[in-house]
Amino acid sequence: MENSKVLVVGGTGYIGRRIVRASLAHGHRTFILMRPEIGLNIDKLQLLLSFKAQGALLVEASMEDHRSLVAAVKQVDVVVSAISGRHFLLQIKLVEAIKEAGNIKRFLPSEFGIDPARMGHALEPGRITFDEKMEIRRAIEEASIPHTYVSANCFAAFFVPNLSQMRTLLPPKEKVHVYGDGNVKVIFMDEDDVATYTIKSIDDPRALNKTIYLRPPENILSQNELIAKWEKLSGEVLERIPIPSDEFLASMEDQMSTDFLVKHFQFCFILLHFLRNTVKHTCLVGTMVL
Amino acid sequence: MENSKVLVVGGTGYIGRRIVRASLAHGHRTFILMRPEIGLNIDKLQLLLSFKAQGALLVEASMEDHRSLVAAVKQVDVVVSAISGRHFLLQIKLVEAIKEAGNIKRFLPSEFGIDPARMGHALEPGRITFDEKMEIRRAIEEASIPHTYVSANCFAAFFVPNLSQMRTLLPPKEKVHVYGDGNVKVIFMDEDDVATYTIKSIDDPRALNKTIYLRPPENILSQNELIAKWEKLSGEVLERIPIPSDEFLASMEDQMSTDFLVKHFQFCFILLHFLRNTVKHTCLVGTMVL
Repeated sequence: MENSKVLVVGGTGYIGRRIVRASLAHGHRTFILMRPEIGLNIDKLQLLLSFKAQGALLVEASMEDHRSLVAAVKQVDVVVSAISGRHFLLQIKLVEAIKEAGNIKRFLPSEFGIDPARMGHALEPGRITFDEKMEIRRAIEEASIPHTYVSANCFAAFFVPNLSQMRTLLPPKEKVHVYGDGNVKVIFMDEDDVATYTIKSIDDPRALNKTIYLRPPENILSQNELIAKWEKLSGEVLERIPIPSDEFLASMEDQMSTDFLVKHFQFCFILLHFLRNTVKHTCLVGTMVL
Repeated sequence: MENSKVLVVGGTGYIGRRIVRASLAHGHRTFILMRPEIGLNIDKLQLLLSFKAQGALLVEASMEDHRSLVAAVKQVDVVVSAISGRHFLLQIKLVEAIKEAGNIKRFLPSEFGIDPARMGHALEPGRITFDEKMEIRRAIEEASIPHTYVSANCFAAFFVPNLSQMRTLLPPKEKVHVYGDGNVKVIFMDEDDVATYTIKSIDDPRALNKTIYLRPPENILSQNELIAKWEKLSGEVLERIPIPSDEFLASMEDQMSTDFLVKHFQFCFILLHFLRNTVKHTCLVGTMVL
């Protein structure tokens, strides 16, 4: 299959930078949108320059300047957005530009989490993200833009090393909180794998206008299984502290005050443990295209 | 010369990560302090893990836990702090731990800028950083801790690509602000070079209890020379807009509201242009040890 010209939006972010690397590794001509919002962020700028040194092309455009966006989109065949959760709705501008440009063979909006189409019953504040993703999906479909939605479930770095504990990314040392009975299955995805699957989907006709669900069988574990794996690896036994659902939900309110993104992840994840029907829908139903 | 055991504090920061890389590249056994403040910062955590994969050792300790700091310091010969400007005064805790441990052959506090000993006449708010650095120096010297201070002048990424313009890190496209007559010489240091010089100094007896001034002759340029180099490289001519000192100082007040670090850099730098005596002192006096 011929290589594509791929524009990555949000290419310095947590998933975006991995998508840029995967796109370069797969030999696609890779463009990265460079927005004026980069401002004085030296780390993001130096990351962009390192991608440029690896062959990526930086394209200056602003979400506030329709003409610049259309010009950027016209240079490529595929647009992959990995814009952060705080700015999901900015993608409406991108949809408008893609619609006008008329040349895009595939658009992948920023998803890479739990399938929002199955989260209509989610609670506040976690549901905001799902609602915004659905709003972008509607705009894409109304504009008849060829698309693929990537449902990647739970990012491993946020849920695996910490054994899904709150407020830390590191393994607990003595005690571990277990949500519910700890037996609900969850799909953990390595973030580099998410990027690889994403790039593999951009020119796969089977993924056209579909949602792909990433769920490698060996990545599906319950929290109990996760804890057991760590105990085997570390040679230590952790004291289990069960957290009943009502207690957990009551404690959520003061959890949302710090880092929005991480808290959102943890919120969604832990909610899954208490919404077994949702889990069955989200993680165990659907077709793994790739 | 035998390799050292080096503990880097602030090893995920802008300069700290470069010092870690330089230490590893020079074959030193490299330890990185891992503080609980890393919290949910996945980028810093993954950077630490990548350093671990390259051979660095992560040492858990907290600035709030004296015993843990002493234990960390006792594992090494040299401590290099690259803690960020927001937390300079936390280094008092580090000085206390080094004093108690009693085994450190060289301590390099977080400096890497303009020599604070020559900035007693600097204006607020820029002078806060100089004052805090001097406070740490006094604590080091009162505790008779063997030390080296590294004066690295101006970080290139913040002042060179933007031709020393405010509010951006990118080259200006049409107009360029010129401070004063644009002829004051400034020393621009590549940040990786700062790290390399720093690591080269840790076991150099000539740098014991001294300040080293990094000023490679080819890195000393006036703003006019910098602009001329860019114009030659880009093939474009920029319109010069002179900024007299009174106008500039008046505009500084609303400059400090955004990113503290970058604004501080830019503040210090531009101030240099108006304080010619200071510049002569800071950049042209002193001994380049390495």
